[in-house]
Amino acid sequence: MSTSEKPTRFAVALFPGFQALDVFGPLDILNMLSRITPLTFHVLAETLTPVSTQGLGTKHTISQSVVPTHTFADAPLDDIDVLLVPGGFGTRNPVNVDPVVEFLRRAGPKVKYLLTVCTGSALAAMAGVLDGKRATSNKMEWDWVTQQGPNVKWVHKARWVADEKVWTSSGVTAGMDMMYAFLGEHYGEDVARDLAQAAEYVRNTDSTVDTFA
Amino acid sequence: MSTSEKPTRFAVALFPGFQALDVFGPLDILNMLSRITPLTFHVLAETLTPVSTQGLGTKHTISQSVVPTHTFADAPLDDIDVLLVPGGFGTRNPVNVDPVVEFLRRAGPKVKYLLTVCTGSALAAMAGVLDGKRATSNKMEWDWVTQQGPNVKWVHKARWVADEKVWTSSGVTAGMDMMYAFLGEHYGEDVARDLAQAAEYVRNTDSTVDTFA
Repeated sequence: MSTSEKPTRFAVALFPGFQALDVFGPLDILNMLSRITPLTFHVLAETLTPVSTQGLGTKHTISQSVVPTHTFADAPLDDIDVLLVPGGFGTRNPVNVDPVVEFLRRAGPKVKYLLTVCTGSALAAMAGVLDGKRATSNKMEWDWVTQQGPNVKWVHKARWVADEKVWTSSGVTAGMDMMYAFLGEHYGEDVARDLAQAAEYVRNTDSTVDTFA
Repeated sequence: MSTSEKPTRFAVALFPGFQALDVFGPLDILNMLSRITPLTFHVLAETLTPVSTQGLGTKHTISQSVVPTHTFADAPLDDIDVLLVPGGFGTRNPVNVDPVVEFLRRAGPKVKYLLTVCTGSALAAMAGVLDGKRATSNKMEWDWVTQQGPNVKWVHKARWVADEKVWTSSGVTAGMDMMYAFLGEHYGEDVARDLAQAAEYVRNTDSTVDTFA
């Protein structure tokens, strides 16, 4: 791939009850990359109110809240190369996810790359943007996730799956392996390796090895 | 250890330029645990203004912001069993960290457990609360970190180190291994194993194996 095509403009779509590590696993890697190359980044949500990991109808007793930079309505879609979609227990209640699914239906076709982590692939499936694509998801939620996308070519045994512009990963920490692989493809494997070294992360580098399948 | 002594009241001390994964790696595990057992959790910072991963004097071009629940001045120290301290590039500028170091000097002796991730051990060392203790830290920042605590018994080759009430971990993702081990000790290894399985995390379970040393 030409280095002139490096994706540099990232965004994440949040909703109440998102899984914290689905978001901050991959984002921490981007934060580190942004020390050596300029990146832009937006936090998108239905409103500008801080978004909690505690979703409506979920049972967490503790939570954290993250500040959005743009609403879905005002998201600068022409300025986003890569849209990251987390999963989490919030995905199980339409009240939490209807706005983000509607946003993905509109944004999915416009961004250059769509990356999902864990049950984020269920949201992308609900939006129809995985139709005809090979995709994976969390193994403990597999039956529910795959029911959200009857026209998706679900791949059960995979740490992550890349199908052209759509990259989907398995549960939670698999999102980090996917992001390192994504950056390896676009920035070079040496860059990905150095980023993982700095984070002292023991990578799973083979997308087909999935000990949780 | 008696199950009656299980730590259930957690807090994190934030400062500008904290490393996102130092915080949300361990916290995501607690979020999951809180679905099966009640926990309390506070986000502490100098003020109630959202705290950015972009510290003053750091070079990140992208960042995220997290909402505090209490100021350091108002932190309910009598209601905190476990205080988590992240690292990050923000640690290199006193402007970012002086308030949190002052807080650690006061809070460290009061909480039941102090857990640090990555260069968070440098902050604890600056506060004097690691003096005489065995501790570890990020390997890429080793020389600088250890200079912050000449009276600390630094352990170079360790994924994490537990010395009575103080647990310190190596770089970034080592904090997840430390938290799984901490919960394994207090809630049982079966609970830790199930939490890691749900997050599809391939744990490093031996604290003395450190491929980054």
